[in-house]
Amino acid sequence: MKPLKVALLGCGVVGSQVIRLLDEQDGDLAARVGAPLELAGVAVRRLGRKRDVDVAPELLTTDAEALVTRDDIDIVVEVIGGIEPARSLIVAALNRGKSVVTANKALLAEDGATLHEAARAGNGDLYFEASVAGAIPLLRPLRESLAGDRVQRVLGIVNGTTNYILDKMDSTGASFTDALEEAQTLGYAEADPTADVEGFDAAAKAAILAGLAFHSRVTAADVHREGITEITATDVASAKAMGYVIKLLAICARSDDGRSVGVRVHPAMIPRTHPLAGVREAYNAVFVEAESAGQLMFYGKGAGGAPTASAVLGDLVAVARNRLAGTRGPEESTYASLRVHPMGETVTRCHVALDVADKPGVLARVAELFAAHDVSIQTVRQEGHGDDAQLVIVTHRATDAALTATMKALRDLDIVRAVASVMRVEGDD
Amino acid sequence: MKPLKVALLGCGVVGSQVIRLLDEQDGDLAARVGAPLELAGVAVRRLGRKRDVDVAPELLTTDAEALVTRDDIDIVVEVIGGIEPARSLIVAALNRGKSVVTANKALLAEDGATLHEAARAGNGDLYFEASVAGAIPLLRPLRESLAGDRVQRVLGIVNGTTNYILDKMDSTGASFTDALEEAQTLGYAEADPTADVEGFDAAAKAAILAGLAFHSRVTAADVHREGITEITATDVASAKAMGYVIKLLAICARSDDGRSVGVRVHPAMIPRTHPLAGVREAYNAVFVEAESAGQLMFYGKGAGGAPTASAVLGDLVAVARNRLAGTRGPEESTYASLRVHPMGETVTRCHVALDVADKPGVLARVAELFAAHDVSIQTVRQEGHGDDAQLVIVTHRATDAALTATMKALRDLDIVRAVASVMRVEGDD
Repeated sequence: MKPLKVALLGCGVVGSQVIRLLDEQDGDLAARVGAPLELAGVAVRRLGRKRDVDVAPELLTTDAEALVTRDDIDIVVEVIGGIEPARSLIVAALNRGKSVVTANKALLAEDGATLHEAARAGNGDLYFEASVAGAIPLLRPLRESLAGDRVQRVLGIVNGTTNYILDKMDSTGASFTDALEEAQTLGYAEADPTADVEGFDAAAKAAILAGLAFHSRVTAADVHREGITEITATDVASAKAMGYVIKLLAICARSDDGRSVGVRVHPAMIPRTHPLAGVREAYNAVFVEAESAGQLMFYGKGAGGAPTASAVLGDLVAVARNRLAGTRGPEESTYASLRVHPMGETVTRCHVALDVADKPGVLARVAELFAAHDVSIQTVRQEGHGDDAQLVIVTHRATDAALTATMKALRDLDIVRAVASVMRVEGDD
Repeated sequence: MKPLKVALLGCGVVGSQVIRLLDEQDGDLAARVGAPLELAGVAVRRLGRKRDVDVAPELLTTDAEALVTRDDIDIVVEVIGGIEPARSLIVAALNRGKSVVTANKALLAEDGATLHEAARAGNGDLYFEASVAGAIPLLRPLRESLAGDRVQRVLGIVNGTTNYILDKMDSTGASFTDALEEAQTLGYAEADPTADVEGFDAAAKAAILAGLAFHSRVTAADVHREGITEITATDVASAKAMGYVIKLLAICARSDDGRSVGVRVHPAMIPRTHPLAGVREAYNAVFVEAESAGQLMFYGKGAGGAPTASAVLGDLVAVARNRLAGTRGPEESTYASLRVHPMGETVTRCHVALDVADKPGVLARVAELFAAHDVSIQTVRQEGHGDDAQLVIVTHRATDAALTATMKALRDLDIVRAVASVMRVEGDD
């Protein structure tokens, strides 16, 4: 069989693993595809750099554009990341009828529509399993296995760096800063950790997951995003004392009336008995709730060269098979066009700790204020006394707008010295 | 668009849910497929029976063979179960170029080759996600997502009935008989529980998983199978005391040299810290270890009408899309043709409790006997004394043949009054 020619864009942590696997598994891949896969070119920024993998020098080029538009190339694998030049290169390849496999969550979340449009126009495939949760098969199950079901909610830990940090804070009592430093030392966090700790990475993944789960177009700009930089050791300890653990969650959920979806990334307290509470270190795990299937969970390594390359290779085999069969995989599905509602409409619960004056009637006035905002209280506990008196309140489900308004009003209440902490509670409904 | 016509074989627990979902989700399914799916006939054993779902009487027929060979039928969904007439009907449909979706694990494990051959000959699809682990997307990830990786091991809980029974025994101290009775009362176990408690159901699933994971042909007859009927409350309690829990595991593993695979179903002790230990009630969960992806876990409901129907519908959407595109999904992949080795070659570990005479030199003689069989001991603990003296031994990894020979020799040793229990240990290597 004539080999299918693959162009690789990027030869970093993931790219070098892709090259290694193409080489080591060439016989298996050929048997699975029905034709050999041949690495026909690798676009890099600089030619001379030392690499983790041996690449024949004649395959290397700095002219990525020439590579992706070469007539003999069948499939382009993009693992550069970032918006440009990745977008232009992918679009150029798709326009010429090539199929593309990408791990680029940022680009898909910002401007997936342009890529999908180019794939349709060029009649090629656009596959991106590696863009969310690394090696964990998640997009294919959502896009194909659950194609006969109605997804209600996707809730998961999709960023390994922040999970590592929060796990360390939980298990050792470390501060955010110390845990971040350790993560950086171990290579789990980058020198500039902003994309991870501010939730940008998770938000891009949430947008991709929501689009697939709800057959609608969702972009990163639609995602409500809060990071973990404000989480203190005290927050973590007090969550622990109550049987909770703090995780950075990506949550995509259909509204109760089924006509809109909320997509958000923020730290939340979840019960220690929840399966996501046991997800340690840099692992990822995603819950999917579907009407007929019930609760499903997917767990594994969310990042790293080899795991991400595994997902890339799986896609590569799929698009190669499609090309041989003269067909395409399922394309973007946005027929449902559900509205993405603002965070205020999202229904959630809150855990609030208030420093209060220790005198009669305090609880009554606080309770009155919650009631005035239509937020009902599930549990309340008074801790300490005198100047240290604290009220710890967990609410029932309410809209985020009502909860936010309640917090604002609490701050203005004379008997409340300070709102010591506010955290959403998930996973126990 | 012209609708795709679907024939349904069987209208029991799963079939009636398939009908409900086809009806309730018709708009969504049409949008996802690109054409409507039309239920064109339902084969049942008796026409008059009361059913869980409304079916137009003119769709019902007792002549399944006429239905599957009708010219207008595009896709046949088989949810009758069992070997015949399911096999003849599926083969008849495939021979006529129709695509088939089936949940029939017993048939696939006994004679999958005949079905795959018919699918190839007729140029149709044969999909069977629902045959293993109900709603959990597992076959598609193995067959497609991990197509660029090398699976090393699949280890999981794939039978909900036995997991329910063992979970009850563990949490309440109940005997096997009492736990089985409770499972029957609650509908988790059938009146004749043989297929579940003797491991036949899990063995069929293990054969299907092994075939996909290792690109080889594996049948139910290749699977070493032991059930849970011999597990006593004492076994469960003593496992618990040592920090283990007993689960019925399906294990498909590549040998150390990579040239053969072992496929087995048997009860085993796993550490309580292992993620599979936390799988309660009738849930299923499967670990997949792949060279690049690392450890992945899939968790969800392994049985039940709606979950199984969700998996059937997912396949139905996929084969319908394939028909519209004039293509087929990936077919059977057996290129690796790995040998399935006998249980004796499998490498595992053992937990053994021996009732022994309490006198000097007993431990030395027992240890000698293990050494003579090339089985090394990881831990040994003496409990009780006098007539109640017991040695509890956990071995290091050894072939099952060596372990079995050791157990036989122990039974013949004069100082050993009885081998009180023997159980394999998994999940802590």
